[in-house]
Amino acid sequence: MIRPAIQSMTGYQPGEQPRRGKVIKLNTNENPYPPSPRVVEAIRQAAEAGLQKYPDPMAGAFRLRAAEVLADDLPQITPEWILCGNGSDDILTILTRTFVGEGDLLRYPKPSYVLYKTLADIQGAQVDVVDFQADWQLGERFTAATDRLRLAFVANPNSPSGTVLSVAEVAKLADSLPCPLVVDEAYVDFAEANCLSLVGENPSVIVTRTLSKSYALAGLRFGYCVAQPQVIEQLVKVKDSYNCDALSIAAATAAIDDQAWLKQNCEKVLATRARMADAFKDKGFVITDSQANFVWCTHESRDLKQLYEDLKSAGILVRYMSYDGWPEGIRVSVGTDDQVDACLAML
Amino acid sequence: MIRPAIQSMTGYQPGEQPRRGKVIKLNTNENPYPPSPRVVEAIRQAAEAGLQKYPDPMAGAFRLRAAEVLADDLPQITPEWILCGNGSDDILTILTRTFVGEGDLLRYPKPSYVLYKTLADIQGAQVDVVDFQADWQLGERFTAATDRLRLAFVANPNSPSGTVLSVAEVAKLADSLPCPLVVDEAYVDFAEANCLSLVGENPSVIVTRTLSKSYALAGLRFGYCVAQPQVIEQLVKVKDSYNCDALSIAAATAAIDDQAWLKQNCEKVLATRARMADAFKDKGFVITDSQANFVWCTHESRDLKQLYEDLKSAGILVRYMSYDGWPEGIRVSVGTDDQVDACLAML
Repeated sequence: MIRPAIQSMTGYQPGEQPRRGKVIKLNTNENPYPPSPRVVEAIRQAAEAGLQKYPDPMAGAFRLRAAEVLADDLPQITPEWILCGNGSDDILTILTRTFVGEGDLLRYPKPSYVLYKTLADIQGAQVDVVDFQADWQLGERFTAATDRLRLAFVANPNSPSGTVLSVAEVAKLADSLPCPLVVDEAYVDFAEANCLSLVGENPSVIVTRTLSKSYALAGLRFGYCVAQPQVIEQLVKVKDSYNCDALSIAAATAAIDDQAWLKQNCEKVLATRARMADAFKDKGFVITDSQANFVWCTHESRDLKQLYEDLKSAGILVRYMSYDGWPEGIRVSVGTDDQVDACLAML
Repeated sequence: MIRPAIQSMTGYQPGEQPRRGKVIKLNTNENPYPPSPRVVEAIRQAAEAGLQKYPDPMAGAFRLRAAEVLADDLPQITPEWILCGNGSDDILTILTRTFVGEGDLLRYPKPSYVLYKTLADIQGAQVDVVDFQADWQLGERFTAATDRLRLAFVANPNSPSGTVLSVAEVAKLADSLPCPLVVDEAYVDFAEANCLSLVGENPSVIVTRTLSKSYALAGLRFGYCVAQPQVIEQLVKVKDSYNCDALSIAAATAAIDDQAWLKQNCEKVLATRARMADAFKDKGFVITDSQANFVWCTHESRDLKQLYEDLKSAGILVRYMSYDGWPEGIRVSVGTDDQVDACLAML
């Protein structure tokens, strides 16, 4: 009695999340540092204020503060340009449900975030997977007009490569595509540029963000998207009424308010990333230039599946990834300096 | 570029949630009392432990404790029979997406929870709405085999009536229906019986629960469903990977662990409900016998829309509801004794 689309699909497998034991966890791109102390204080206050009432369905406090912060990149932004979600996965789900119906087509590059396929599968939709070029750019094939193409996703920075498309390149993709383009900016705070300005220029561009990575709040589940207000109005119909809880709204508002913390945290992560990249290169790995909080490592001769297993046995989790037609690799999240040193020592 | 099903639908309108001002809020069936103090303590501990890591995708701690608590009603239950969600709305969404595709049919009674129609609309599905009988029971029409019927919802206790179908009656519905039956037990802790035992007898029965009402945690967003493990396995594919956050998992586990608090809270609510029902009757309202934390009031002559407006002007929010073909009514949530007295004084 299950829908055939669901029965036949394989569910998305999130990275390993060991609940006990002492593990150096460099497999799911979490921030190695705790969040801003203001976040913990905001949670305490919200919990003590009582949780018996429903939360604000639109997370108004966050939208208000976020609009102020994001105005640096998108001057015309107001709270009406922002939709909050239970993690950016919730936002990606809402977007897919809004644009992609049964039998429709969803396009995304490869290698990239494998969740995109799951989102299409659940809708009973088809996917059109376009390989990155050898230089991690996308050619004209990505913008081809195809029957029933309804939505395209681009993770920028991309995972697992950590590479970016320039803002000008993303603008060109958006202009050429016959459907909306979602720019998944989960890792953008670790990059040199972002695509927020494009949302002002093109109603077909939707930028998604998460507080999981750069704000060190993966456990909180809070993300958002920025789009023109007439798009947000439609997305609201698809979201669960109370998709963000009172604690996460308070915490996320405190987090985005603390831009000084964000800046300092990103500086630490970027310094460690540079050191990691050099060290991996010294050990013979092939590294792509990363603008995210992880490093993608391939190797011409080593068995990386075995390396992943060996590291795991030693209590160090990294993400082994193998995409059909691409060299296998390990994606190593930027940890603390001590965690990274422990990982390097094992290699 | 929006899917036609979304473009043409009207979004679900949650009850008014005023964010400021002193309002007596009796419109969305929240618990008037704060949650167990153990919940606040669990949140504080989880927040201080750090939120930078992803939460447990399956909310294992909750499932473990819930299985112990629910074994009183369903002896064979194990954690594998439970799926947690970001509020029971998340669970209802997951269920609809798992069973109901574009052009399929979803059945539910009327008057009942209007979200069921929204869930079908988002899927591009049709609804088959079956009127309750005058005695708030469901006739054979509800179990008729209809082409493309994929799922049926029954809120039990029902909203806005607060009435129940007996466990035997629900068992009969489930046996007769050609599709799975979701028994939405959001209000069941205020009722005399529940349908959990039916899940053991019939793989087509799925019971959903929420911590929003009886556990006073509407702001937290935590709900779950109980179904046979082979059903849960399919639902897992459809949920967002990390649909419950670390704070809500810790809080919900503490909440379900404190059954003494639950018992005491329900006793208070039930005592006030009895007093409310009598008082409304004395004032000439027609009341259905409620087994939930609200009372459904109709009146033979009073203009209830006007009454709702008058109460609102006086700072008292109740829910005015008008279902096509049914007498209009106001649904008044059980508040504290003081809140209820204030409401009664205004009538």
